[in-house]
Amino acid sequence: LMESWSFLDTVESNFRPLVVIELAKGTKEETIEWFTKRIVDKKANGGAQLLIKPLVTENGVENIYLVGASHLRLLLGAETVGLVKECSDNSMRTFTYSSRKTFKDFADDNHNFLTMAECQYIIKHELENLRAKNEKMIPGYPQAKLYPGKSIVRRLLTSGILVQIFPLHDSEELKKLRHSWYGRVKVGYQPLDDIRCYFGETIALYFGFLEYFTFALIPMAVIGIPYYVFAWEDYDKYVMFATFNLLWSTVILEVWKRICSILTYRWGTLLMKRQFEEPRPGFHGVLGINPVTGREEPVYSSFKRQLRIYLVSLPFVCLCLYFSLYVMMIYFDLEQWALDYHKENESNFSSLMLYVPSIIYAVVIEIMNRIYRYAAEFLTSWENHRLESSYQNHLILKVLVFNFLNCFASLFYIAFVLFDMKLLRQSLATLLITSQILNQFAESLLPYWLQKRYNRRMKKQMCSQKTGRDLSLAEQVHMEKEMGTYLGTFDDYLELFLQFGYVSLFSCVYPLAAVFAVLNNITEIYSDALKMCRVYKRPFAEPTANIGVWQLAFETMSVISVVTNCILIGMSPQVDALFPDSKMDLVLTVALVEHLLLAIKFIMAFVIPDKPRDIQMKLAKLEFESLEALKQQVRAFQMQL
Amino acid sequence: LMESWSFLDTVESNFRPLVVIELAKGTKEETIEWFTKRIVDKKANGGAQLLIKPLVTENGVENIYLVGASHLRLLLGAETVGLVKECSDNSMRTFTYSSRKTFKDFADDNHNFLTMAECQYIIKHELENLRAKNEKMIPGYPQAKLYPGKSIVRRLLTSGILVQIFPLHDSEELKKLRHSWYGRVKVGYQPLDDIRCYFGETIALYFGFLEYFTFALIPMAVIGIPYYVFAWEDYDKYVMFATFNLLWSTVILEVWKRICSILTYRWGTLLMKRQFEEPRPGFHGVLGINPVTGREEPVYSSFKRQLRIYLVSLPFVCLCLYFSLYVMMIYFDLEQWALDYHKENESNFSSLMLYVPSIIYAVVIEIMNRIYRYAAEFLTSWENHRLESSYQNHLILKVLVFNFLNCFASLFYIAFVLFDMKLLRQSLATLLITSQILNQFAESLLPYWLQKRYNRRMKKQMCSQKTGRDLSLAEQVHMEKEMGTYLGTFDDYLELFLQFGYVSLFSCVYPLAAVFAVLNNITEIYSDALKMCRVYKRPFAEPTANIGVWQLAFETMSVISVVTNCILIGMSPQVDALFPDSKMDLVLTVALVEHLLLAIKFIMAFVIPDKPRDIQMKLAKLEFESLEALKQQVRAFQMQL
Repeated sequence: LMESWSFLDTVESNFRPLVVIELAKGTKEETIEWFTKRIVDKKANGGAQLLIKPLVTENGVENIYLVGASHLRLLLGAETVGLVKECSDNSMRTFTYSSRKTFKDFADDNHNFLTMAECQYIIKHELENLRAKNEKMIPGYPQAKLYPGKSIVRRLLTSGILVQIFPLHDSEELKKLRHSWYGRVKVGYQPLDDIRCYFGETIALYFGFLEYFTFALIPMAVIGIPYYVFAWEDYDKYVMFATFNLLWSTVILEVWKRICSILTYRWGTLLMKRQFEEPRPGFHGVLGINPVTGREEPVYSSFKRQLRIYLVSLPFVCLCLYFSLYVMMIYFDLEQWALDYHKENESNFSSLMLYVPSIIYAVVIEIMNRIYRYAAEFLTSWENHRLESSYQNHLILKVLVFNFLNCFASLFYIAFVLFDMKLLRQSLATLLITSQILNQFAESLLPYWLQKRYNRRMKKQMCSQKTGRDLSLAEQVHMEKEMGTYLGTFDDYLELFLQFGYVSLFSCVYPLAAVFAVLNNITEIYSDALKMCRVYKRPFAEPTANIGVWQLAFETMSVISVVTNCILIGMSPQVDALFPDSKMDLVLTVALVEHLLLAIKFIMAFVIPDKPRDIQMKLAKLEFESLEALKQQVRAFQMQL
Repeated sequence: LMESWSFLDTVESNFRPLVVIELAKGTKEETIEWFTKRIVDKKANGGAQLLIKPLVTENGVENIYLVGASHLRLLLGAETVGLVKECSDNSMRTFTYSSRKTFKDFADDNHNFLTMAECQYIIKHELENLRAKNEKMIPGYPQAKLYPGKSIVRRLLTSGILVQIFPLHDSEELKKLRHSWYGRVKVGYQPLDDIRCYFGETIALYFGFLEYFTFALIPMAVIGIPYYVFAWEDYDKYVMFATFNLLWSTVILEVWKRICSILTYRWGTLLMKRQFEEPRPGFHGVLGINPVTGREEPVYSSFKRQLRIYLVSLPFVCLCLYFSLYVMMIYFDLEQWALDYHKENESNFSSLMLYVPSIIYAVVIEIMNRIYRYAAEFLTSWENHRLESSYQNHLILKVLVFNFLNCFASLFYIAFVLFDMKLLRQSLATLLITSQILNQFAESLLPYWLQKRYNRRMKKQMCSQKTGRDLSLAEQVHMEKEMGTYLGTFDDYLELFLQFGYVSLFSCVYPLAAVFAVLNNITEIYSDALKMCRVYKRPFAEPTANIGVWQLAFETMSVISVVTNCILIGMSPQVDALFPDSKMDLVLTVALVEHLLLAIKFIMAFVIPDKPRDIQMKLAKLEFESLEALKQQVRAFQMQL
């Protein structure tokens, strides 16, 4: 049989390198031999049954290996990871090897049925699931302990023998993608499906959200412009603008859920079953019995973790928050100083000086955010969470709370303690614009420039202008392995989240914020695209069905913005003038309006279905089919008796 | 083989009647013959493969049939409906016939492995899933159309041929249950597990909630008593009481979720897979293709339904709300009149007269609630919802909105328009106590008394004091078929919901409300138990994993009560006196406190896990096992290749 597993490992014709494994220099021979044997070994022997080839360069063997797999192996792997693909009848179904013929575009000789990103994801999954059998340690490294069931790759990574695993770029595909994405100047949607094919669902969903969010901000921006142009200061216009913004922000967040489900249905991830979560690589503990799996693996007392969280992390976060407030007070001193200076001198220079404190503060905020980010990562990793999801949740919570306070505390202080709307507007504008410029620079242009310089140097060194295929592959591997690693969409979402805060929290004071946000996001799309394609190593595709905790974060922000906007409008002199007799009536009216708006928001969020009707129908259909199949199975079994 | 399906229908030894089918008088012979044949027919022929026997009485055959099933049939049915039972290793698993030996208490001759309620649920499920094959109509009734896949029982019910299907009581078991439930005067928990075994999960969960809720109200009641005894009127004590209440109500609702998951895990329903929802019996439409199932069945345009909802139901509900407000204004006129009368006469009688308007109004509210309930049911059924769940949601929404306004509008009016705290306290007390007395009377005592009278008459008529087994069965069937039908837990939950409103919305004005609620609930447990055991027909068990939409309703109420209590405290003269200079500060403080309380509530709801840690672990373990099994299956399949 052509399809036998035992046959697989001998077929090495058209080996296509998909993933690169870099081992540390000076790794012992026996370790390499053992590791590569496990990778190519048969499934039945506990191997991954993949193909592996050392990268041969002019300098000889360099402990860099290329991993690939046969077409059949990849198809079987697709079943293992639970990929969902489109069938011939346009429905989405979980791929199984036995039902392969029913899938769209499937043919035994069509090697493009699985995208390259999918193949790389499968290989990563298989490598990570390569588990120790009865080895007590990694051969050659007695200090790197193993126990039955421990992921070998994770142990190799934590003990520094394995430097990195990364998927290779596909220059042809990348060129095409770059061209359709940001290569030509055009107005239009991003090629989200192509991005998904190349970079996977998580990254495509980020770009989808970025694009959607930009479009969603356009109405706010369009309505905001005349406020600036005609210098409208009537309270009723502000009220209208703010009310529109508040309801609009609820609508866009609800509609995003629908669009997200449309996208992820098409990509198959909406239907993908959740895989059982293994401990994260950094997790350590003493060997014990996991009560869930019943396996022997490291366990770490939940009580100790709680102690670390509440006795160390929490006080540290509070200290950071206090420090951030302290810096804010310094900023206000500076602001006062600049004002005094301007009053004394009244020159052009002094009026320019008025903006300096805000700019300095904006830079300091960015720096503090970044430093805190590292501290938060260190602390969360030290808390020793067992699961990646729990680690992520604790990290996101820490970072969100600090960033929120750090970025917005000064604005809250100006608005609700100083009651200085002019200063608020000025600060808001300076903070928003400065942070956007800094971000764009720090995120994309700087690394791009560094990368470009490195590449040039690299090419010179290699001095190889030959067109040989193998050499150009070696060149590519060497170039890519030095590229930075993309650390996930966290920072990108965080940036959008803070931007959303600038736009919505004080929208009725500075309607132009949405305009700047739109402008920033348009360039952000391009700079992020550039970053993904040129600056960083290709990341592994990561299937996902939604933007996760960010949805909740954005929704919380939109609730907070209802409160702030209502107070701001209530404080404006125009509204004040409407209630000349009784401040009481004013406050009561504002409170009433606020509660009404909040009620409308919650009702809207409740009433708008999270999935469009046709997606609901398709999901219902699939559920019906699987229930029917189960029933058939039970019936068939009952008939046999 | 003893276990063959074909053998089943011939084994009629120890036939145990479980379910009663009553056909209309004068039903045609051919219909009866066809229907009973379908019930006993083999699965392979599209039958239900159950056992059926006509009930023979002295008056001859009466179109009443007893349905039972063999032990094996019931076990196979348990697999079909997806029952979850306890295994020998104390874990909960979905029952399958092939793995039957691994379950606790299973033995081939142990006929008590499935509870009677489970057996009756299985029979109901099998009867409802008896579907038309190629019949175009019910034999003998050309107007009762059938199409392939239509549930025969539902068609028989809607065309009036089938009068009712109900499960039989088990006098022995019922006697035991009654004794341990309410037979002896004792302080202690209800026998929830026994209730679940006898009446099923939905009803047991209601009693569980009722008991939990009563216990949860005790702290409020205990704290509330001294306020009454010592006539505390200090604002700080009220503030403390209200704050405690608000946070407490969040805690109890969150903790209920945990307790609910503990109960339903033990009962197996937490793990039960949702069954595919069939159209509800009353649904009608023109034959078309259902896009989900692909089957030919009646479809009804969603657009037409929306028209009915928005053009008829919505205006009708608004009209009812308006009418309710109108009645409220009449009540205030009456109140004024009584006050004037009391001022004129100043007699004992006139001071008693002061309470009369409130009592009349309370009675009118109850009557309006009940009439509206029928109207809402009629309208929702006329809206022609396809699924029972959609029907229930629309009905509950209609009823909740009206009942909320009808019960609380006058209190809101007194509190926030008249600012009359004394009247508020008096109205609240009268409404709460009157509605509780009325409810207890209307729900249990009246039907119990009617039932008792009927039973006595019945026994006399039958004049049969013989002890023959069959006759006593016939007597039992005749008695039970005339009993009222229990219409589900809706009204019981609604009563608790309104009570929760009385207790929490204005808790800082009338701390004694919790005391009355506790007293009422203690008698409510007894009267509801009486109602279930003596007044109504035994209801079919209905598996459920939670209290559904009521959780949301209670949570919404507790959010609204934060707002009302904050306003009430802000309005109290004592708090007023604290801010002598500026009303402004008062209002701002109240608003701040309110927002803080709401924030704390949401954070608490977010932080408290919905399931206790050990349940989470057990669920994770099951998920892990099923994923492992799937992986094994894939691996085994891959090995074969």
